[in-house]
Amino acid sequence: MPAWTTEQLVRVEQALEQWVPPDAPADLGQAMRHAVLDGGKRLRPLLVLASVRACAPPQPAAWMNEAGLRAACAIELIHAYSLVHDDMPCMDNDVLRRGKPTVHVAYGEAGALLAGDALQTLAFELLTPTHSDIPATVQAGLCGLLARGAGHAGMAGGQAIDLASVGEQLTLEQLRQMHRCKTGALLETSVMMGAVAAQASAQASQALLSYGQALGVAFQVVDDILDVTADTAVLGKTAGKDADNHKPTYVSLLGLQAAQQEAARLAEQAQQALAHSGLGDTQALQSLADWVLQRKH
Amino acid sequence: MPAWTTEQLVRVEQALEQWVPPDAPADLGQAMRHAVLDGGKRLRPLLVLASVRACAPPQPAAWMNEAGLRAACAIELIHAYSLVHDDMPCMDNDVLRRGKPTVHVAYGEAGALLAGDALQTLAFELLTPTHSDIPATVQAGLCGLLARGAGHAGMAGGQAIDLASVGEQLTLEQLRQMHRCKTGALLETSVMMGAVAAQASAQASQALLSYGQALGVAFQVVDDILDVTADTAVLGKTAGKDADNHKPTYVSLLGLQAAQQEAARLAEQAQQALAHSGLGDTQALQSLADWVLQRKH
Repeated sequence: MPAWTTEQLVRVEQALEQWVPPDAPADLGQAMRHAVLDGGKRLRPLLVLASVRACAPPQPAAWMNEAGLRAACAIELIHAYSLVHDDMPCMDNDVLRRGKPTVHVAYGEAGALLAGDALQTLAFELLTPTHSDIPATVQAGLCGLLARGAGHAGMAGGQAIDLASVGEQLTLEQLRQMHRCKTGALLETSVMMGAVAAQASAQASQALLSYGQALGVAFQVVDDILDVTADTAVLGKTAGKDADNHKPTYVSLLGLQAAQQEAARLAEQAQQALAHSGLGDTQALQSLADWVLQRKH
Repeated sequence: MPAWTTEQLVRVEQALEQWVPPDAPADLGQAMRHAVLDGGKRLRPLLVLASVRACAPPQPAAWMNEAGLRAACAIELIHAYSLVHDDMPCMDNDVLRRGKPTVHVAYGEAGALLAGDALQTLAFELLTPTHSDIPATVQAGLCGLLARGAGHAGMAGGQAIDLASVGEQLTLEQLRQMHRCKTGALLETSVMMGAVAAQASAQASQALLSYGQALGVAFQVVDDILDVTADTAVLGKTAGKDADNHKPTYVSLLGLQAAQQEAARLAEQAQQALAHSGLGDTQALQSLADWVLQRKH
C-alpha cells in the first residue's frame, strides 16, 4: 500500500471517529459507530481524496483539504448506512459484516433501522458545516451529487432492481444496468465529489467521470468473482450468498474466466481515462484501479 | 380553512406529484408515491410557506418562491420517510396510515425500507436543483438545517429515545426532551427553513424559533390527547396505540385535563412569539397555531 494511501486512511479514520457521535441518545450513537468504525476498505473515501489530489490546483485553497475530507467521510456514511439496511432480515438477512456481527444482530432491528437512517442524515450534515470557509457553491454541489448518487436514480434504485431480480433471468445488459446504479453510482459519485471539492476543470471532470464509470463496473465484476472464489473468513462477510439466493451475477452469466477478463478490461479502461486528461497527479487513482482488480476481499 | 392555506396545499400537492418520481426502478417509485401522495395534513410544508410569507421582503426575489416550495416538499419527504420506517414491523408494526395500508403492507418490508431510504435522499436532491437561480448559500443553508433537524440530534435521536422508553417511567422533563427531538425538531426546522428561504433578518429568525419551539411541543401534547380521545376512523391511524404499548405520554403523566391546559398554554406562547417580532404578515402562522390546538386528527 503506497504511503499516500496509508496517510489518507489515518485521516479518514480519525475524522470518522470524531464525526460519528458517541453521545447520540440511547443506543443510537453506539449503533452508528458500530456500523462505521473499525472496518471497511474505505475505497470510496480514498477515491474522493485521490480525485482531489488529481484535480487540485498547484496552490490549493486552505478549505479544499477540509472539503475533500468531509466529502470522503460523507460518502462512507452513505455506504455504511446502505450496508446496515441491506443486512437486515427483510433484505439479505446477513449476520456477519467486516468480520463483526451486523448492526441488527448487535442492536436489534429497530436499532439498525434508525442507525442507518441517522447515518444517511449525518452525511448531509457533514457536508454543510455551520462554521467553515468551504464556499456555499461547493457545499451545495457536494450535497446535490451525493443525493443523486445515493437516491432513486442511483444506489437506492439499483437496490430496488436487485430486490426485484432475485430468481429472475437477467441479460448481461440488465445486470450491468443494475450494478451501474447499485454500486457504480456511488463509486462514480466519490470521484465526482473529489472534482467538486477541488473545483476541477470541465475537462478534468469528464476524464474522472469516465474513470469512475469503468471502475464502478469493474468493482462489481470482481465482487461477483470473489463471492465464488474467496472464503468467508477472508471476505469478512458470508461467501457464496449470491448463488445460494439465486441472484444473477457476472460469474453466473459469463462464467468465471470471462468474468475475470471483463474485470481486467474495465480496469484497463479506467487507467486509459486518466491518460491525456488534463489531470495533475493521478498516481493514487491508478493505484486504486489496480487494487480494485487485484483485491482479495 | 383560509384561502391562503387552500392555495398553498394545491401548490404542495402538485409539486410532490411532479417531484416524487413514478419511474424509479422496479416498485420503488410507486412505493415512494404511496408514502407521500394523497394524504397527510401537510403541516410541515404549510409551516415552511407561512414562514416564508412572514419573512419575505416587500419585493421578494423570484427564486424565493421556488426555494420555499422546495423546502416545503423536502421536509414533507423527511416526515413521510420517518412514518414509513416507524410503521414497519420492527418498530410500531402499524398496518394503517392516513386511512391506507402502510407501505410495508402494500410493498413488503424490503420495499418499505428502500422507499423510506430513497425519500430521505430525495429531500436533499430537491434542495439542490442543478439548474436554478436559488443562491448556493440558500441551498446549502436549507440542506444543513434539514440534516440537523432530521438527524441524530433531532428526529432520529428522538425516535431512539422513544424506542428505549417503552415500558419505562419517564419524568415530564424526559418526556419533553424526547418530543422536542422526535416531533419538535422537524416542526421547528420547517419554520427555520422558511426563514432561510426568505433570507429573514436575525430578529425575525429568533421570533420564528420561539414560535416553532412552542408549537412543536403543543403538537405532541395534542397528539397524545387525540390518541386517547379520537377514534381510529377520524384519526386515519390506529388510536389507543400508546396506552396499549405502555408508552409514556403527556396524558398518562399529567391526566387529560391538565394535558389540554398545557396544549392551550403552549399554543398561546407560540402566538405571543409572533407579536412585536419584526415579522411581516403572520396571519398564516397564527392560523396554523390555532389549527394545531384545535385539530381533530
